[in-house]
Amino acid sequence: MRVLSGIQPSGKLHIGNYFGAMRQHLQLQADNEAFYFIADYHALTSNPQPEAIRQRTLDVAMDYMTLGLDPEKTVFWRQSDVPQVTELTWLLSCVTPMGLLQRCTSFKDKVEQGLSPNHGLFAYPVLQAADILIFDSNVVPVGQDQKQHIEVTRDIAVKFNQMYGETLVLPDEHILKSVAVVPGIDGRKMSKSYDNTIEIFESEAGIKKKVMRIKTDSTPVEAPKNPDTCNAYALLKLVASPEELAHWRKRYLEGGMGYGEVKKRVVELLQEYFRPYRQKRQDLEKDPAYIEKVLTEGARRARAVAEKTLARVREVMGLGEVRNGK
Amino acid sequence: MRVLSGIQPSGKLHIGNYFGAMRQHLQLQADNEAFYFIADYHALTSNPQPEAIRQRTLDVAMDYMTLGLDPEKTVFWRQSDVPQVTELTWLLSCVTPMGLLQRCTSFKDKVEQGLSPNHGLFAYPVLQAADILIFDSNVVPVGQDQKQHIEVTRDIAVKFNQMYGETLVLPDEHILKSVAVVPGIDGRKMSKSYDNTIEIFESEAGIKKKVMRIKTDSTPVEAPKNPDTCNAYALLKLVASPEELAHWRKRYLEGGMGYGEVKKRVVELLQEYFRPYRQKRQDLEKDPAYIEKVLTEGARRARAVAEKTLARVREVMGLGEVRNGK
Repeated sequence: MRVLSGIQPSGKLHIGNYFGAMRQHLQLQADNEAFYFIADYHALTSNPQPEAIRQRTLDVAMDYMTLGLDPEKTVFWRQSDVPQVTELTWLLSCVTPMGLLQRCTSFKDKVEQGLSPNHGLFAYPVLQAADILIFDSNVVPVGQDQKQHIEVTRDIAVKFNQMYGETLVLPDEHILKSVAVVPGIDGRKMSKSYDNTIEIFESEAGIKKKVMRIKTDSTPVEAPKNPDTCNAYALLKLVASPEELAHWRKRYLEGGMGYGEVKKRVVELLQEYFRPYRQKRQDLEKDPAYIEKVLTEGARRARAVAEKTLARVREVMGLGEVRNGK
Repeated sequence: MRVLSGIQPSGKLHIGNYFGAMRQHLQLQADNEAFYFIADYHALTSNPQPEAIRQRTLDVAMDYMTLGLDPEKTVFWRQSDVPQVTELTWLLSCVTPMGLLQRCTSFKDKVEQGLSPNHGLFAYPVLQAADILIFDSNVVPVGQDQKQHIEVTRDIAVKFNQMYGETLVLPDEHILKSVAVVPGIDGRKMSKSYDNTIEIFESEAGIKKKVMRIKTDSTPVEAPKNPDTCNAYALLKLVASPEELAHWRKRYLEGGMGYGEVKKRVVELLQEYFRPYRQKRQDLEKDPAYIEKVLTEGARRARAVAEKTLARVREVMGLGEVRNGK
């Protein structure tokens, strides 16, 4: 199966990114043909500073490559190195009903928040459909909240195939089973926009400092505690073995345990989990040319697939062969 | 000055196309660097049959080349051979306020007619802005009714330059002075959609048949007539010399002239006007490979300019150099 995923170039990744999606992406490499790209065209809809987008793309690439992305096996590239997707975006736009885009919740949310959105935010689902369809993707792993995007992609592909004959491969969604929602240090979902994150590769002292600050309630040490509403326990679940987790669960329910104790253990386990990769992360940081080489080679492989799909689409629409650069 | 114009691939052109825009396009070649393309990406918004779009593109190309487009001087290409415009369309979408597109009259008209438009129709002005801006166009000759499109392009360019620094060249409109609105044989504006056209290169017998059928009023032969409301006179104005026109005007006002008489003269003058080109049109029809060669070479020249602009835009937005196909 060909698995496709777009990764937001949001800069240095945090443990919420890791346990929420990245780990699953890395696991899917084993039994699938993985196509992963860093979605810099999409990122432009929020008008980032030019220097920020460059650096964040590099940081995300380094984090993925450090933690197990295998560039020999997996096709890994920067979206804007395969501009063919923007051509397919236009072609798909001509079969995409306006109503379909107007019903998309992410755009509706922005309008309801009183934001004055740009056209890129509105057209985003068409670019996303092009991303998926141009690589003949079979499976797109997404979180529950992104299910609608895959449905929109399928709707567009069905419409296209009805109009021009069977041309595009319909993708299936694959809902990522998040081990848990990963809480940030303030207890809300871990997210850059809440400034409550723990970066995967910040210093071990930094991890310690942040975990120790995680919001817990004021139940006294001696009293029994509820693990299922505890932010520290939610993090523990991500990194502790089942046996160890059972042990801590018992201690929560018995009472006589301070939150500081469990936080210290979370610190240790988080540090241990990522320790084997620290050196590799530092080595990659010193070798941006290598990252660039991997992304360039990935783009070359991605482009070869994209050009074939685009040639099929152009042919059935009456545009004839692609002459770009030839 | 660099003059840019996009030509709809509407098939065999009619004398309304010729006197309304094409003649001015051909004249502008003399003192300008002309960039003219056949807008097949745009045509896709109305979902034409694939075979129709191929044939119509060829027909339009042949008509232009027959009537004086000089492919040595003028850059002449098929829009979809320069897919770089679709990439710029995406990049510009990220700075284009939704409100700007929602206010565009051509889209609003379609919604008011109760049509359920596709996203291509809505996004059309952004593609048009990309067409203009990617070639650093100075002047865009348009009819009065297309003025808004150039204003939208300027608005997008200004917005982009404010955000990312001076990058895009602001175009000026150049309102085409139509000699007159060209009436079709039923008296409405000559237009394919009214099925009231006289094709430039239909047979001379066909031209005669259609002109003789032109709608005129029922004023008796002996009575004075109003030239300024007469469809036959409107056509006469396009092809008669000023001296001859003055003569006919006098005859209208005096009375004693039948409409058949003036129609016969219109037939003669129209046939004479286009007669010198008939042979060339037939020769081109027999040599589609030559048309293809001209369009391919035009696309190569257009692409060289487009790639430079796109490189500038990508650089200031933080995307770095274009690696497409390299």
